[in-house]
Amino acid sequence: MTITILLSDATAAPQDLLLMPMPEHVSLERGRVAIDSAFTVQLSGYSDPRLPRAIDRLFQRMEAETGIPFASRPIAGPDVKSATMQIHCDGPGEQVQSTRADESYQLDVTDQGVRLTAPSPIGVLRGIETFLQLIVLDQQSFFVPFVKIEDKPRFRWRGLLVDVSRHWEPVEVIQRNLDAMAVVKMNVFHWHLSDDQGFRVESLRFPKLHQKGSDGKYYTRAEVQEVIAYARDRGIRVVPEFDMPGHTTAWLTAYPELASVPGPYQIERSWGVFEPCLDPTRNEVYAFLDSFIGEMAMLFPDEYFHIGGDEVNGKQWNTRSRIRSFKARHHLKDNGDLQAYFNQRVQRILAKHGKKMIGWDETLHRDLPKSVVVQSWRSQASLAEAARHGHPGILSYGYYLDHMQPASFHYEMDPGGKEAAALSSDESERIWGGEACMWAEFVNPDNIESRIWPRTAAIAERLWSPSGLTDVRNMYRRLEYLDQELELMGLRQHLNNLEMLQRMAGSQDIAPLIRLSNLLIPTGNGVRQRTRKYSSLTPLNRMADAVSPESSAALHFNDLVKSVLSDRSHAAEATQQVRKALTNWRENEFLVKPLLENSFLLQEIQPINKMVAELCSKGLQALDYIESNQKAPEAWQKETADLLSLAEKPQAEMLPAITASIKRLAEGAK
Amino acid sequence: MTITILLSDATAAPQDLLLMPMPEHVSLERGRVAIDSAFTVQLSGYSDPRLPRAIDRLFQRMEAETGIPFASRPIAGPDVKSATMQIHCDGPGEQVQSTRADESYQLDVTDQGVRLTAPSPIGVLRGIETFLQLIVLDQQSFFVPFVKIEDKPRFRWRGLLVDVSRHWEPVEVIQRNLDAMAVVKMNVFHWHLSDDQGFRVESLRFPKLHQKGSDGKYYTRAEVQEVIAYARDRGIRVVPEFDMPGHTTAWLTAYPELASVPGPYQIERSWGVFEPCLDPTRNEVYAFLDSFIGEMAMLFPDEYFHIGGDEVNGKQWNTRSRIRSFKARHHLKDNGDLQAYFNQRVQRILAKHGKKMIGWDETLHRDLPKSVVVQSWRSQASLAEAARHGHPGILSYGYYLDHMQPASFHYEMDPGGKEAAALSSDESERIWGGEACMWAEFVNPDNIESRIWPRTAAIAERLWSPSGLTDVRNMYRRLEYLDQELELMGLRQHLNNLEMLQRMAGSQDIAPLIRLSNLLIPTGNGVRQRTRKYSSLTPLNRMADAVSPESSAALHFNDLVKSVLSDRSHAAEATQQVRKALTNWRENEFLVKPLLENSFLLQEIQPINKMVAELCSKGLQALDYIESNQKAPEAWQKETADLLSLAEKPQAEMLPAITASIKRLAEGAK
Repeated sequence: MTITILLSDATAAPQDLLLMPMPEHVSLERGRVAIDSAFTVQLSGYSDPRLPRAIDRLFQRMEAETGIPFASRPIAGPDVKSATMQIHCDGPGEQVQSTRADESYQLDVTDQGVRLTAPSPIGVLRGIETFLQLIVLDQQSFFVPFVKIEDKPRFRWRGLLVDVSRHWEPVEVIQRNLDAMAVVKMNVFHWHLSDDQGFRVESLRFPKLHQKGSDGKYYTRAEVQEVIAYARDRGIRVVPEFDMPGHTTAWLTAYPELASVPGPYQIERSWGVFEPCLDPTRNEVYAFLDSFIGEMAMLFPDEYFHIGGDEVNGKQWNTRSRIRSFKARHHLKDNGDLQAYFNQRVQRILAKHGKKMIGWDETLHRDLPKSVVVQSWRSQASLAEAARHGHPGILSYGYYLDHMQPASFHYEMDPGGKEAAALSSDESERIWGGEACMWAEFVNPDNIESRIWPRTAAIAERLWSPSGLTDVRNMYRRLEYLDQELELMGLRQHLNNLEMLQRMAGSQDIAPLIRLSNLLIPTGNGVRQRTRKYSSLTPLNRMADAVSPESSAALHFNDLVKSVLSDRSHAAEATQQVRKALTNWRENEFLVKPLLENSFLLQEIQPINKMVAELCSKGLQALDYIESNQKAPEAWQKETADLLSLAEKPQAEMLPAITASIKRLAEGAK
Repeated sequence: MTITILLSDATAAPQDLLLMPMPEHVSLERGRVAIDSAFTVQLSGYSDPRLPRAIDRLFQRMEAETGIPFASRPIAGPDVKSATMQIHCDGPGEQVQSTRADESYQLDVTDQGVRLTAPSPIGVLRGIETFLQLIVLDQQSFFVPFVKIEDKPRFRWRGLLVDVSRHWEPVEVIQRNLDAMAVVKMNVFHWHLSDDQGFRVESLRFPKLHQKGSDGKYYTRAEVQEVIAYARDRGIRVVPEFDMPGHTTAWLTAYPELASVPGPYQIERSWGVFEPCLDPTRNEVYAFLDSFIGEMAMLFPDEYFHIGGDEVNGKQWNTRSRIRSFKARHHLKDNGDLQAYFNQRVQRILAKHGKKMIGWDETLHRDLPKSVVVQSWRSQASLAEAARHGHPGILSYGYYLDHMQPASFHYEMDPGGKEAAALSSDESERIWGGEACMWAEFVNPDNIESRIWPRTAAIAERLWSPSGLTDVRNMYRRLEYLDQELELMGLRQHLNNLEMLQRMAGSQDIAPLIRLSNLLIPTGNGVRQRTRKYSSLTPLNRMADAVSPESSAALHFNDLVKSVLSDRSHAAEATQQVRKALTNWRENEFLVKPLLENSFLLQEIQPINKMVAELCSKGLQALDYIESNQKAPEAWQKETADLLSLAEKPQAEMLPAITASIKRLAEGAK
């Protein structure tokens, strides 16, 4: 019997497969290939050194997933039939992976074993990830089900930006993120390497850049090469960003002569948009950039080079008469024109060094060559506009991880969404994909993983899988499993959170604090900046830094609440579960309290601890009304509405995650 | 006001200091030095490259403990007064750390700041660990209390043996163990590098040793050097062990011509004592060992070289007429004499290469030179006997981590205990310390850390701190805190256990399984070997491999039970807590059950899951009798006794951890 699952029909998504991103075509058959210590792999066709290394990682990860020691490694001989898993790669693909890479693969699990075929090594890498996600266990054994998968990505550019300027991230953190990207088949690591707060790459030609612009926290050239090789092994391109002409305070700390206004400058410690800006009117600046880009173009093999170009406020340009007269002389009517002039000269320097330019959507200008890729962070409209003007574009609007939105929010943001629907087919061909963005005002090595993962997997699926796949509930089910898998492979998105809680609690037992933390979410970047004066030297060691951006406890609770209110057949059982959860959470207030009293870092969370308990009380009262079929009195409704609106105000830069569910219950009691 | 704590008086142990091992002298005063981002360190006196690196780690670990980004690193200038922490090292100490190293230090925290002084770099390293353990937080800040500490070790040899032959451990696992050893001031890493099941070091002179004897799992020379340098940086000596003449199957797989009986040989896959043995009668064997030891003596700088010498069953020697006539010719009356002959020749080879010999207590023989160190694994008596015969000795009897004894068991085992008390003072000077032993039949990288840590810290304290420190309860309190600290610094003793549970449960929620696992302990090596046929290829992916050797939940529960039964003032409160715990654990049976049904790895634990619930039921019934001041009926007592004796039989190679507490309650109900 064959169950064919058409993934364009989201309602038929395969309930039993915990794949993410979901492949384009999956059909499931009855049968299984058991995974035991006899498992072997055969590689045939074309090979390059990436493939044996990938197979080695495959075995390592199978060992981690199953605990089985696999003595055997790939079989060298031509005896294809004897191996459990036969991998065939048709050809070499590209030397340097590009936007044109063929990432497709085909994976068949039958009574003949596992067969993975792909036109290029990248496709093999993608197929191995799918195979690993197929491994499950039941009453009998670890196994992969019989399955036929044909898969390729919807979009060619599926990226993650990591800002290492505002807070530094060591190489091992970058590598763990690359590991996770590979799992969800992302293919671009966008490395935001310079900004007002730090310049993070060793430069041989201009060593003061890293010496004076980084507080000693920069990547050596060897480390950059190590990261690029690590990414390449996983089918991921590395696109460096050197943001210019704004966001350049760290450059100017080292080379103030490049600035529009004379220095000296110091590394910026706070967050925001700042004035320091390269001077676009002087040839020395372009000579510097020519030499600098020449050096970096050799270090980074990717065909694209990101020049930033965002948030130039133009204040420095306005104050300098020399710059004003330059504009007049060159018929540049405003600072936008001046920046476009700068961008064109930079683009010619990039072209000279064999690179194509990519910039933020502020760079979009009638004079910009059509080869330039536009990264839209301000709206979906600007993505469509770029496409209409002939530019390839990628979407980051809606993919800002520092805004602390739920995965479902990002999942619903589609680069091929309604703005794109109005485009001609030529134009919509220019929509190349998207990038999740991890801006680093409030992340450091302790919490960056919990801000990126697992939510980014929802974006990765949006960019890889067919557009018809929109079942949010099913996405969350698979996301939770993926989340576990990532931890198993060494990611620290939950572990680090626990360690942060322990740090705040000292020697005290953190079990009650964990329960509370599971019901809290941090506010986004914007709220936090308005609440306190932050800088890059402010410790990120408070509750708001530790709690996850999304609460799966609250998500499950909300499902239960929906059952209580609508699904009459399970309402009684759901009511009992909701009551139990609310009672436990309410009691937890008193278990948390002594912990708070003994820690200066935790004292600020007493109000939100109390608020959670009060929300639980209201929820329990609402349940009483619902169960007894009574209408809640007006006074109670008023009081509850007041509490709910208070709960929507951040406390200690966090919000309770169950507010919406309690509101739902309160409405049910009306 | 000064509170002086005399640690020889165990009842006055400082309740507020979470130090482990406890220093020799501690006095506590009123006051504190706050730890904030202004913290700086000044190094004066002698320095070598170890010290700046140690200070760099100090900052990293303070960042991990507090979340504060420390911008400043050691101050270069002579302005000692301005630094928060002043470190003064008197002199260089030894080039290669020996058993004579001075590890003492003095640590004063006053209103002048923190002052750490030591005669040698090793003492500085020890003092830094104590300082890090002093950092705590309260309502106001992170801080260290005003304190005056004078400290030095009781024993000079405080080791951990890790067997990497029976199961392989990668370098990062070794390094994490070295990290933890440094925290508890251990100073010898005993690397058990060869055995029947594997030869784990690259040899240039005899490359077949690692090529044929290791399944490709061996340390390259560069890795060995990396480990030695890593250990040296932390004040830890690395003593290699190449076990001979028995336990040599892996050598003989590569060089069968060294065997007492002609080969061929294959790497041994199972556990036990095996026959293959070097031939002690042939000069070629000593020529081989001379060349091999010469190579390894250059690779390992330590003055000691461990030659094993244990468990030679002599069967191969008995079968060969040539060997029998050799014995007769040399007046060697038995195989013990023959092995002593072998040991003497090996000792001369070691001496030629500048090394001193250490061997297991089987090597003790009247003809053995007195410089040889004897490691007693068979009894405390053999340690005393070695001392009486003029040998330095170290104790491992009672320190076998694979026996799965509680920390309290190891804590009570004192190398200077009653057997040693009968020695003369010259003789007892020869008791040099001890070593925890992690034999690897049932450990792999997934669970080795949970078998070593935190229990080994109790052994470390026994070997470092004054003998009068014997308060087990206080030890456990500090051990639990240390356990957390180790996880914070990257050890994986709990994390890996959780991951193993998740692996067994697949995509299911493991919360109930965690609760159950906290109430189970694995049986020791012996029981496990008798239960199933194990080999080095058997997956260690079952519950018995995952659960911790000691249950802190059961430990706390037992304290509560004692309160119920004896401490009348808190009995009511304790009774309520015991009832709640038992009720929750009993209910947990039904939450665990569906998980077991969906996993072939978990099915075997249903009987013990049920047993735990039954023990809880009995405990609740006993509480009822106790609370109502009724004597439990005979039939109940009989039934309970039967259940308790059943509970003492291993199920799925585990035992419930609460059996003793339930027995106590049942006796209370009599």
